[in-house]
Amino acid sequence: MTSLVASQALKGRIQRASFLKRLCRPEDLLHHFPNGASIGWSGFTGVGYPKKIPTFLADHVEKNNLQGKLRYDLFVGASSGAETEDRWASLDMISRRSPHQVGKSIAKGINTGKIKFFDKHLSMFPVDLVYGFYTKDRPSNKLDVVVVEASAIKEDGSIVPGASVGATPELIQMADKIIIEVNTSIPSFEGLHDITMTDLPPRRKPYLVMQVEDRIGTTSIPIDPEKVVGIIESDYQDQTAPNTPADEGSQAIANHLIEFFEHEVKHGRMPKSLLPLQSGIGNIANAVIGGLSESNFYNLKVWTEVIQDTFLDLFDSGRLDFATATSVRFSPDGFKRFYDNWESYHNKLLLRAQQVSNSPEIIRRLGVIGMNTPVEVDIYAHANSTCVMGSRMLNGLGGSADFLRSAKYSIMHTPSTRPTKTDPIGVSCIVPMCTHVDQTEHDLDVIVTEVGLADVRGLSPRERARVIIDKCAHEEYRPILKDYFEKAEFECLKKGMGHEPHLLWNSFDMHKALDQEGSMRKIKKW
Amino acid sequence: MTSLVASQALKGRIQRASFLKRLCRPEDLLHHFPNGASIGWSGFTGVGYPKKIPTFLADHVEKNNLQGKLRYDLFVGASSGAETEDRWASLDMISRRSPHQVGKSIAKGINTGKIKFFDKHLSMFPVDLVYGFYTKDRPSNKLDVVVVEASAIKEDGSIVPGASVGATPELIQMADKIIIEVNTSIPSFEGLHDITMTDLPPRRKPYLVMQVEDRIGTTSIPIDPEKVVGIIESDYQDQTAPNTPADEGSQAIANHLIEFFEHEVKHGRMPKSLLPLQSGIGNIANAVIGGLSESNFYNLKVWTEVIQDTFLDLFDSGRLDFATATSVRFSPDGFKRFYDNWESYHNKLLLRAQQVSNSPEIIRRLGVIGMNTPVEVDIYAHANSTCVMGSRMLNGLGGSADFLRSAKYSIMHTPSTRPTKTDPIGVSCIVPMCTHVDQTEHDLDVIVTEVGLADVRGLSPRERARVIIDKCAHEEYRPILKDYFEKAEFECLKKGMGHEPHLLWNSFDMHKALDQEGSMRKIKKW
Repeated sequence: MTSLVASQALKGRIQRASFLKRLCRPEDLLHHFPNGASIGWSGFTGVGYPKKIPTFLADHVEKNNLQGKLRYDLFVGASSGAETEDRWASLDMISRRSPHQVGKSIAKGINTGKIKFFDKHLSMFPVDLVYGFYTKDRPSNKLDVVVVEASAIKEDGSIVPGASVGATPELIQMADKIIIEVNTSIPSFEGLHDITMTDLPPRRKPYLVMQVEDRIGTTSIPIDPEKVVGIIESDYQDQTAPNTPADEGSQAIANHLIEFFEHEVKHGRMPKSLLPLQSGIGNIANAVIGGLSESNFYNLKVWTEVIQDTFLDLFDSGRLDFATATSVRFSPDGFKRFYDNWESYHNKLLLRAQQVSNSPEIIRRLGVIGMNTPVEVDIYAHANSTCVMGSRMLNGLGGSADFLRSAKYSIMHTPSTRPTKTDPIGVSCIVPMCTHVDQTEHDLDVIVTEVGLADVRGLSPRERARVIIDKCAHEEYRPILKDYFEKAEFECLKKGMGHEPHLLWNSFDMHKALDQEGSMRKIKKW
Repeated sequence: MTSLVASQALKGRIQRASFLKRLCRPEDLLHHFPNGASIGWSGFTGVGYPKKIPTFLADHVEKNNLQGKLRYDLFVGASSGAETEDRWASLDMISRRSPHQVGKSIAKGINTGKIKFFDKHLSMFPVDLVYGFYTKDRPSNKLDVVVVEASAIKEDGSIVPGASVGATPELIQMADKIIIEVNTSIPSFEGLHDITMTDLPPRRKPYLVMQVEDRIGTTSIPIDPEKVVGIIESDYQDQTAPNTPADEGSQAIANHLIEFFEHEVKHGRMPKSLLPLQSGIGNIANAVIGGLSESNFYNLKVWTEVIQDTFLDLFDSGRLDFATATSVRFSPDGFKRFYDNWESYHNKLLLRAQQVSNSPEIIRRLGVIGMNTPVEVDIYAHANSTCVMGSRMLNGLGGSADFLRSAKYSIMHTPSTRPTKTDPIGVSCIVPMCTHVDQTEHDLDVIVTEVGLADVRGLSPRERARVIIDKCAHEEYRPILKDYFEKAEFECLKKGMGHEPHLLWNSFDMHKALDQEGSMRKIKKW
């Protein structure tokens, strides 16, 4: 290994002098990546992922026509950047992937059978990793090499992450070898993290978080310095996309939700400052948070998975007191705004391991308001979060079930329809039966579309079906769904099996019409 | 109200003198039960439920031909006794019921549309009750009257329950009026309970249980004495059924599981004394616990929902150190054995609220081994725990998802087939797609039948399907399932939607063959 001279910027970030001697170039580390290796990367929702090593390896494969010859099992807390993970997929470098991903090439690899993918609750993935469940058939029971992006390294060798924590603590716990990419193109995030590691039962301890702002850990990730086989200086920024603007439908959904919150406060079931908010990714989530910025709610707090641009607006509106998550995934403009106003934001933000941000223990204790967008919801309040037509994987389960199972208010928001090539409302997001179930009827309290809000708390399945069809379905689909339900109800009650009535042989007929005629509206009869 | 003279036995159980003045007969309390009232009962899995008042009310309806004219919303932690709940259902006295039930008449009432039933995670039902979610449309936001069985009452009026805690703490928190049935036909259970009440967020606190035997509460349930409108002396015992014996298939399942535990210990993923065991109800559960009584495992501990007769054997074998649950549901013989040997058992047992026994927080922290029996499991490891043919409710979700979501080892055990009237293996419990999903593919680690054990940890859906069909399906169904899977895989991969391949329009064809020809084997082709 050629020894390199550290830049001033890098010296400013690495407090442990001995690590400067391990400074190297990506090519010096190639031998740690034999075909078939089990690899971990830091990163979560496309921020805080390593860039230099993955890019070098992709270049290496491309230049030397090694497509399909260097393939890896790849574990990252959630999705990584498109220029790394998705490029790897396009170069056939991924044999197995878990627990979440984003990108056209990786989705194609998964759905054409090239990539073995399994999605897992994001709170549980790091624990199962430490249990050895994902390395049980490997000789060492460990991951071969873990590549971590750091914004700084402390005297004891511990790592200060960047814009995400994700599963990095557990990936490091399970690493045979560690490579650190120190990113000098972003500020040091020191002080912004609350890091906890994972003990094994019977020695696991409670997460003593009683309020959103509670700190229970350290500010950096402890490591075994002897495992560090190389330090790389990195100057690539996280490649994030611009913010998704809210459209009219999302605004309507946000309005329904804010009205619902007001109703709950009025009836004494929620404090005036609400309860900690969890909000997913996408234009509906942005509209909801945007709507809160103009609401009558103050002293809000956020306990969520990912913090996005709209939360900066919510801070700036004076309504948000504190936010915690496992990543800050701003747009390029958002990151600039965040760095430019570091002083005003950094004391109101805390990043935790995804096992903590998504912890059912804490979500239930704090009484979080959980909000998420599904592929489809059925008339009995099951939801599909992952597989289109029951089979085609989108991105994975993510933290949806972590929050929706344990939240005080479990809310699914979705447009009532989506367009197809031939029909602007060819897909109804309210269906008779979900083609894949990720959230069960036992987990959802509220379904909301631009049409309206269905409060299904305490309702039997047949009551639920009536209110969901009535309040949430698009007017074109309302009679179609009502027909299904009434026919199913009639048939099943007659047979003494009418708790949750279904026409089992016809339950996917709307999907069949979509598949064969381009629109769910084309269904002839039930 | 006529004032009654307390028996010596009753005086021995009631330390609060003023309560003796509220002693009355069931008929004196009839006016607290107007048609349409919201009622709570103590009890869980058919033990610790009130008997005198429910029986009196049923007699009253029967004698006066009031069927359908006195109907109630009935909330009990889980199932009650057949002679109360099921008799009420047969007399059309139940308009709404949650979250679990057992009995032919009540199942009939639910599946013919007379009873509005919704099942809910047993850990979550008491919390949602205290949130006011189930009483939100009632004027007082409370339950009108709650009837609780006590084995004793303390000086401060607090209640010492009998053989179950269940949701009694929260039912009492939500009660407008309280009636206490003091049961003098069973011993006082004082000291056997660890009682916690439910705070609302943002004031909820952690459950500081670090070991199975940790106590975090009080020995009795605090009440507001002014709410007590009557005290009844009761002398009816819990009506439990005899123990279900293990059959050959269950023994085979138990053997596969014990071998799996040995394998995990050998590979260092589990301590020699295993981890806290959770076991459901039924002959497979009994075989597993029975098998452990003859195993090489010692210093075992149990963290479960219900303790049954086989746990007494496990204690007596010297292998079980401590067991905690929310109820002890012994057979009549088992209760006799328990009472006769009180001194040797009572220090090794603790009964907690169902919110604690089924707490995801504690189950995850302790690394519980969760085991449960489903209606059916599909080739991708989803499970149906509740609705036969997608529509007919059996008993309800119970605690299955509380444990299976959060356990370290999430295990589903089932016979590979069940008989129909015309075919001894007419139903395959391994199916292409579950007709109802209560546990998702993200929640199960191990599927086991008498045929074998499928360890699906870290596997992609297509890998899972192969191992489940191969290891768990009955030999008659293996080729049928393999055909489905291979055809689905071929079709879906071709279309670029092969992550979790399904033939969506044919996924329930085995169920159709069962429905129309009496056996799933009668399926012609996919």
